[in-house]
Amino acid sequence: MSGSSFGHLLRITTFGESHGAAVGVVIDGLPPGLEISEAEVQVQMDRRKPGQSDLTTPRKEADKVAFLSGVFEGRTTGTPMAMMLRNTNVRSVDYGDIVDKYRPGHADYTYEQKYGFRDWRGSGRASGRETSARVAAGAVARKWLARKGVDILAWVSAAAGIECRTFDADFIEKNPMRACDPAAAEKMAARITELKEIGDSAGGIIECRVTGLPPGLGSPVFDKLEADLGKAILSVGAVKGFEVGSGFAAAGMRGSEHNDEWDDQGWKSNHAGGVIGGISTGQPLVFRAAVKPTSSISLPQTTRNTKGDTVEIRTEGRHDPTICPRIVPVLEAMTALVLMDHWLLQRALRGEDPR
Amino acid sequence: MSGSSFGHLLRITTFGESHGAAVGVVIDGLPPGLEISEAEVQVQMDRRKPGQSDLTTPRKEADKVAFLSGVFEGRTTGTPMAMMLRNTNVRSVDYGDIVDKYRPGHADYTYEQKYGFRDWRGSGRASGRETSARVAAGAVARKWLARKGVDILAWVSAAAGIECRTFDADFIEKNPMRACDPAAAEKMAARITELKEIGDSAGGIIECRVTGLPPGLGSPVFDKLEADLGKAILSVGAVKGFEVGSGFAAAGMRGSEHNDEWDDQGWKSNHAGGVIGGISTGQPLVFRAAVKPTSSISLPQTTRNTKGDTVEIRTEGRHDPTICPRIVPVLEAMTALVLMDHWLLQRALRGEDPR
Amino acid sequence: MSGSSFGHLLRITTFGESHGAAVGVVIDGLPPGLEISEAEVQVQMDRRKPGQSDLTTPRKEADKVAFLSGVFEGRTTGTPMAMMLRNTNVRSVDYGDIVDKYRPGHADYTYEQKYGFRDWRGSGRASGRETSARVAAGAVARKWLARKGVDILAWVSAAAGIECRTFDADFIEKNPMRACDPAAAEKMAARITELKEIGDSAGGIIECRVTGLPPGLGSPVFDKLEADLGKAILSVGAVKGFEVGSGFAAAGMRGSEHNDEWDDQGWKSNHAGGVIGGISTGQPLVFRAAVKPTSSISLPQTTRNTKGDTVEIRTEGRHDPTICPRIVPVLEAMTALVLMDHWLLQRALRGEDPR
Amino acid sequence: MSGSSFGHLLRITTFGESHGAAVGVVIDGLPPGLEISEAEVQVQMDRRKPGQSDLTTPRKEADKVAFLSGVFEGRTTGTPMAMMLRNTNVRSVDYGDIVDKYRPGHADYTYEQKYGFRDWRGSGRASGRETSARVAAGAVARKWLARKGVDILAWVSAAAGIECRTFDADFIEKNPMRACDPAAAEKMAARITELKEIGDSAGGIIECRVTGLPPGLGSPVFDKLEADLGKAILSVGAVKGFEVGSGFAAAGMRGSEHNDEWDDQGWKSNHAGGVIGGISTGQPLVFRAAVKPTSSISLPQTTRNTKGDTVEIRTEGRHDPTICPRIVPVLEAMTALVLMDHWLLQRALRGEDPR
Repeated sequence: MSGSSFGHLLRITTFGESHGAAVGVVIDGLPPGLEISEAEVQVQMDRRKPGQSDLTTPRKEADKVAFLSGVFEGRTTGTPMAMMLRNTNVRSVDYGDIVDKYRPGHADYTYEQKYGFRDWRGSGRASGRETSARVAAGAVARKWLARKGVDILAWVSAAAGIECRTFDADFIEKNPMRACDPAAAEKMAARITELKEIGDSAGGIIECRVTGLPPGLGSPVFDKLEADLGKAILSVGAVKGFEVGSGFAAAGMRGSEHNDEWDDQGWKSNHAGGVIGGISTGQPLVFRAAVKPTSSISLPQTTRNTKGDTVEIRTEGRHDPTICPRIVPVLEAMTALVLMDHWLLQRALRGEDPR
Repeated sequence: MSGSSFGHLLRITTFGESHGAAVGVVIDGLPPGLEISEAEVQVQMDRRKPGQSDLTTPRKEADKVAFLSGVFEGRTTGTPMAMMLRNTNVRSVDYGDIVDKYRPGHADYTYEQKYGFRDWRGSGRASGRETSARVAAGAVARKWLARKGVDILAWVSAAAGIECRTFDADFIEKNPMRACDPAAAEKMAARITELKEIGDSAGGIIECRVTGLPPGLGSPVFDKLEADLGKAILSVGAVKGFEVGSGFAAAGMRGSEHNDEWDDQGWKSNHAGGVIGGISTGQPLVFRAAVKPTSSISLPQTTRNTKGDTVEIRTEGRHDPTICPRIVPVLEAMTALVLMDHWLLQRALRGEDPR
Repeated sequence: MSGSSFGHLLRITTFGESHGAAVGVVIDGLPPGLEISEAEVQVQMDRRKPGQSDLTTPRKEADKVAFLSGVFEGRTTGTPMAMMLRNTNVRSVDYGDIVDKYRPGHADYTYEQKYGFRDWRGSGRASGRETSARVAAGAVARKWLARKGVDILAWVSAAAGIECRTFDADFIEKNPMRACDPAAAEKMAARITELKEIGDSAGGIIECRVTGLPPGLGSPVFDKLEADLGKAILSVGAVKGFEVGSGFAAAGMRGSEHNDEWDDQGWKSNHAGGVIGGISTGQPLVFRAAVKPTSSISLPQTTRNTKGDTVEIRTEGRHDPTICPRIVPVLEAMTALVLMDHWLLQRALRGEDPR
Repeated sequence: MSGSSFGHLLRITTFGESHGAAVGVVIDGLPPGLEISEAEVQVQMDRRKPGQSDLTTPRKEADKVAFLSGVFEGRTTGTPMAMMLRNTNVRSVDYGDIVDKYRPGHADYTYEQKYGFRDWRGSGRASGRETSARVAAGAVARKWLARKGVDILAWVSAAAGIECRTFDADFIEKNPMRACDPAAAEKMAARITELKEIGDSAGGIIECRVTGLPPGLGSPVFDKLEADLGKAILSVGAVKGFEVGSGFAAAGMRGSEHNDEWDDQGWKSNHAGGVIGGISTGQPLVFRAAVKPTSSISLPQTTRNTKGDTVEIRTEGRHDPTICPRIVPVLEAMTALVLMDHWLLQRALRGEDPR
């Protein structure tokens, strides 16, 4: 129980470091009979992989997924589905400097405090590469949910201090920022390119919207839908905040403004963000996540080394000037896993499919 | 597994509805030998209980805790510690109108969708009363952590649109808002009294700061300290957002600003909020939660009834114009439970106490 | 996680010591809508309670169950169902001698090794009284399963060296031994009365048969139906062995004898005991448990005291000369909990009720 | 949660079918710093692999283990350790007949009832090959325990109706039966060779003895050491019974015989088998498991096909005439996993290593 598993009934376990032999995931609890292919999963892997554009790290990693078990004649069997991605681009030479210096913003120091020593190759388990296993698992959950009419869409709503003001769903996958507003996307790209050139980095906000959910998913106390979802999202490295529906804006609202009323046309608003008392309302599920600027920057910083000396560090290498566009499919994947899990829980509770 | 348990090694299970016989909690996984008395737990119960001031519901509920098991001669035995609070003030007459109308902002509709029917007495399990069981459990974890030198302090940093601008730790428990700024507290009280008089309600922001944590607590992937904490906090009714350290502000920062550097005097900043890569850094753990305005308001609203008709509803009764001051001890309790849990996990991993 | 919870989707948590304020149980994961009353649960409590006959302890304990939560208007709500039994007959004076002597066959020494000290009142948590909470929970699961056509029946098939040779289902509840063979029951009673008079005790074998199970329950690897059931049964104090179907006799059989063939009339045998590869076959589920003789005997024995001296001990008091008849409802209860749990898991997997 | 994970703090998840791409295991919760090599794990794999002798299946499967993650510079890092075994000998042609016939004693029928269809290649997930993943994980736990002074030894104490009467620990690994008595081993081999020639199979009994355990391991209620161990052992295919210490013999004993007394020389007996009240006593842990005769036999049998017709089946192929010698390392592995898990739990509870 070192926290590498997630989920109640649909439970994933990930393994692997960025510079070890492979990363992978085992999904336990998948219902039998879902048609799924490596090519379908690969579509999602390609959305997360490095080297997609000038706004992501130029590092090349094929992120080629292979099924190891749990699929027979193109369908899930109901037994554990294991997927693996071999690590192909392991240039440990890039990481020489971090063997004995703790990079600011990275987990180097905390890992060493936790474990007594650490695998210093490319962040080890704390690497963003671990999230590729989540995306693989999420691709399966997503397919399953799509069959039920559930659609999950995330995008970058702000980055490098620039906010989207319009929303064009079709544009999201067509721009390297995965922003929803063409004008803002252009400004973001320009600003991030500048930051990249000076060796700095940018953060941003991801928004996600799920449509087609039935009401009744989620548990009322600790496993509230928003609590499980919040944990899922906050477990992704670089995420510093999570809000659902009205979120932090709720703090300044009055009850008469915030409550979602209902009239003959249906719900009049969705401040709840699709979930009340931990249970889905049937309205769209809406949440946002705050993403910190990439910790790896090439500007000089002061830090400690393993001997306790204060030293200068420059984390050279092939880094993302912002992680925002690549984190979009990760958040979608985690969302899919949480929703499918609660869907299965509801089947157990009621003895029938919610849809 | 209907989500009434929380925690990994230190695991609590709560039970009880607001208008049933009792609410309570079982704590499993408590180490033996902790001195604890009902009076010590009662101190925390009294911070959460209704009727504390004019800014909370005038409803009277003794919230008197009784130990049922797990304590022998004043010390925990290592076996499950059960605590119970009898429900004494059960005026179901107040709730007549909600039997067949779904209150806006409440879980009435979602419960009915989930379970097929619902216990309509005072919100049943979705009632804030369920959190009294959390506070009881948290009081025990808090005592255990205090022995290790860990201090947990939460307060209201904004409410009804008014933000605290100064910080006076000693003032927090001396004002009914549990605000940290005397001037702001006065304004908040005035504004909330106005809202109460017109039958409306207010939200706010709770901030929490934990000092004395050793580095090394938390797991690197799914059970990141901030992820488990986020889930804990988001599982409290009325919480719509959670952020750690820089939180949503991180989205607009550059990496060179956000990274916490280290020099000979120690850490130069704490944007991380005390946790990097899911593991505590040894700096103070800092987080904030957004609390929505109380859903129960006496202003008229439109909603559905169980037949599907659009109807008007006025949720009369004894409600809190804001839940902020009473939610402070609940968030502290959840924080204590998460931290003690991860402390125990670290003992298992390393074979010795982190302190 | 000190092991006081059991089950996957249907999860119970028990609490309480024999000489504390109360024992009880919280059931989480119960589907909504099951009609259940305290009186129905009490029927099962009365089968386990002490003082039923001359063959059980003369100690009087009302074992009166009270519902604390989770039931509204006579039906389960889907939220945690808590039940409590107050301890009424707490004569700690009987236990004076065991404060500093470790009783042979009891957990006194092992508790002290585990926890560093112990609650020495009447075995604390290791007392058979803990099983009353299991029986209460099992009564609810049993009712739920009965609605699905599942019948659970256990009986004493051997005790004090005497084996049943005939099987009369109706006789079981009519004799204080809960044996299935009238002639054997009489001999058992006589033999156990003799042992009681000389201050000794007897063990026995419990057999259990479940009919009406659909095929397909159970998971193929670690959570095999017989593995979860075995754990459930072996977790009951005094049980030293568990076997399913052919059990230990299988060791001496040939494959051609043991395999259950099938012809036009159906299965030709049931050596499997109703489960193959961890999954129910639809045949009756059949298992046996070995019960050790009661550890509390009044004959003198040598043991250690807490100082490490070798001393004589006589565990006077009101003990059961055999625990067999009272353990029957406990094993039935654990069986019901395991089966209902796997039934719910199958609903989640397939999206419909198995029946 | 389809039951492919096992353990509390030390938690393994296995994946893979006998005729898919690979089988493997992820171990989560391993403490950092344990020196471990593929070669050390391979030693245990080789004890389980097919083709060891004339008494096992002649099928060749290299069972070559590869580490995928969690080990850095020869030591565990504290993050998930994944291990994989490629399936090399996948002759699906052997299994043609079982596509539409349910083999007696096999899980073909039950899988189809559970999942709606099945992967019919060589038993899929129900294949004994799944246990290779357990042996790999167990090898790591075993090494960790050995460092603590714990020794785990299992052997065949009976097979094909022949019982061992002497005990020679050194002989066990020197004979293909892994029996403990040279004379009995010879008779077993002869008898099993006869059965093999006529296309039949044999069962047996495995005994296991663990020395060097400290007292205090195990939890008092549901997670009793013998309950978790019983589940672990009963989760291995072909095991039909489990008993600890006196086991089924306890049923016929008197309390005065069964209780383990203590005098100045220490414990006078070990009927408990090293565990009382779910917690280790410090005496050797002793248990036995009943193994059914191999289900795959080439003698003709009657069964059903998928259309419901009664048909004859002969399961030709390369089968083990008895699984006993190959199951010995599997039971040792499961034992190691349970013991290490409870060792870690005890560290969490007490804040120090038990030894």
